[in-house]
Amino acid sequence: MDLTSLVRPLAAAANASVRLLSRQARLRLRASASGLVVSGGDRDLAVRFTSPATTHVDGEVLVPAAPFAETVRMLDVDQVRLVVEGSRLAIRMDGARFALPLLDRDLQHDLSPPDVLSEVDSAALAAAVRTVAGTAAKDDPLPLFTGVRVQSMGDELRLTASDRYRMAVARLPLRAVRQPIDVLVPAALLTEATRCGHGVLGLHADAGRFGLSWEGGIVTTAVLDAGFLSEEAIPSNAVDTEVELNAEDLAAAVRRVGLYAADRRLLTLEVGDAHVRLASARQDTGEAEETLKASVCGGRTSPTFQPRYLQDALTPFASRRIRLAIQPGLRACILTAADERELDLTYYLMPLLPR
Amino acid sequence: MDLTSLVRPLAAAANASVRLLSRQARLRLRASASGLVVSGGDRDLAVRFTSPATTHVDGEVLVPAAPFAETVRMLDVDQVRLVVEGSRLAIRMDGARFALPLLDRDLQHDLSPPDVLSEVDSAALAAAVRTVAGTAAKDDPLPLFTGVRVQSMGDELRLTASDRYRMAVARLPLRAVRQPIDVLVPAALLTEATRCGHGVLGLHADAGRFGLSWEGGIVTTAVLDAGFLSEEAIPSNAVDTEVELNAEDLAAAVRRVGLYAADRRLLTLEVGDAHVRLASARQDTGEAEETLKASVCGGRTSPTFQPRYLQDALTPFASRRIRLAIQPGLRACILTAADERELDLTYYLMPLLPR
Repeated sequence: MDLTSLVRPLAAAANASVRLLSRQARLRLRASASGLVVSGGDRDLAVRFTSPATTHVDGEVLVPAAPFAETVRMLDVDQVRLVVEGSRLAIRMDGARFALPLLDRDLQHDLSPPDVLSEVDSAALAAAVRTVAGTAAKDDPLPLFTGVRVQSMGDELRLTASDRYRMAVARLPLRAVRQPIDVLVPAALLTEATRCGHGVLGLHADAGRFGLSWEGGIVTTAVLDAGFLSEEAIPSNAVDTEVELNAEDLAAAVRRVGLYAADRRLLTLEVGDAHVRLASARQDTGEAEETLKASVCGGRTSPTFQPRYLQDALTPFASRRIRLAIQPGLRACILTAADERELDLTYYLMPLLPR
Repeated sequence: MDLTSLVRPLAAAANASVRLLSRQARLRLRASASGLVVSGGDRDLAVRFTSPATTHVDGEVLVPAAPFAETVRMLDVDQVRLVVEGSRLAIRMDGARFALPLLDRDLQHDLSPPDVLSEVDSAALAAAVRTVAGTAAKDDPLPLFTGVRVQSMGDELRLTASDRYRMAVARLPLRAVRQPIDVLVPAALLTEATRCGHGVLGLHADAGRFGLSWEGGIVTTAVLDAGFLSEEAIPSNAVDTEVELNAEDLAAAVRRVGLYAADRRLLTLEVGDAHVRLASARQDTGEAEETLKASVCGGRTSPTFQPRYLQDALTPFASRRIRLAIQPGLRACILTAADERELDLTYYLMPLLPR
């Protein structure tokens, strides 16, 4: 194998591969007249990137992914030559040579990717995934709580995730719908894959696999076989109090008053006539209260939250006005934006038992 | 106690106190006609800040430092009222009240600070301390290697630190010299204190204590009683090879080639006629080499280094031309800037046994 490649797209492909696979992964480099293909993975998770290159001699090699990616990322030249020299892949440029050991080529896992079922805008998907995937549990004995449900509903894509204590549901427009899709995708991988993607993303799926593709790249993963989460399962018919206020102001107050919550655990949102009063207290840490103007409708149901969870729930609404639909007892509080935007987000937050 | 204070200087004083002392520290707030004094510490380490305030009722209280500092830092108002209410210090503003428990006032440690012996520009000192203190060991059974020697030599301040494997010596001009100074100051505290200081800094010392003061603040610490490091103890009379090149280019090449060093351990600087060649290799990680143009004088002594240490040594020289004075065998390599600048730095780096 012998080729000349631009450094920047090669570094992007190699580093995305390491992030998506793992630092111990191996990368397959395949050079042909049509350019360079960087791929890696196993039966459960596979990545494949194409990168422009001038191929002098066709060929295919397997190298350790992390040192290859790190070397290419640190180069401060525009072009680089990749050439097999004995048992080494040499990365060559003027005045420097880096040589990696060639690894034995193992079994090929070049399954053809699942079909494209639909398309979505990458920026919209990334914004939705950031919020929804953050609601999934990092680590849970039940895989159900570590995935994001990716589901088409007509020409709308719906993403749902929950760690039992909160659930986020995002709705965003699909750009093209060929077939419906409904899969549970590992949240961490979905987050990383949407970070790599750009432009229009293809959504791929078949029995057991999910894939995300863009110009020059595709990631496929085995889906979680763990049933499905659904917001319809959360009771929402007992709303008796509605509060509207600016999400950022509320978040700032939660940060301050939350400092005074015992073990940062309990913060009460006391609903008044035209305000909410945040209050936290414990004998040995002191107490705090802060009052914010708000539009209040209905009753005066005053839920208690873990401040950190309430903050997480407010973050994606940024400087928008937010509507809190509050239900009495241990029923979810439902957060939505008061105004309409392209990314439609519903956040369900379980209250705690007040002291 | 009852006072109104600007939030910004109060937050700066409280947060600097927490950084310099510890998160478990207590802060003493003392209000009088002349403003607010924020202080804390014990016999070994003391901080004292003055902050402008309008005092309504004189008084003095002791509060837990970290929650006080965090609360004040998070406020988004300009002014705040601090008022004692029963067993609480209330931090009050429109619509909000935060209340911290008052702590029992313990023994006072208000030793008067040592005398000012000299003055130095804060920016120059901070730059020198960043480099020199970084050379001290974070943790070493011998306190000698965890301190920075702060020493006046006529109208020059000399800072010296070493972790046995490298030593950095910085020289910078003193602005006023009243009495000579020669103390060993804990490196971590010196770093933090120079981050807080601004403008002209007073250097204070007496038997057993060192202090740094600036407009509105002073930090004093017990000095280390551990003897002194001196660059004069490092043999430097066997230099037989001198190399001059750009520090940034060399650092970038060290970063790349160092990836290929076994356990990132060994990198050889092979000195040629008008170049240096960096080389690293090990059977299972591959090998790398990179050649840089350089001015070479004298012999061809080619030392071997731990790449990380060589990188650390190059960092403070940034984009300057650097001179490496190389000695044969296991004698230090001496790094200095080829050009003259206000901050004069000498870096001694011990080579390793080549393979």
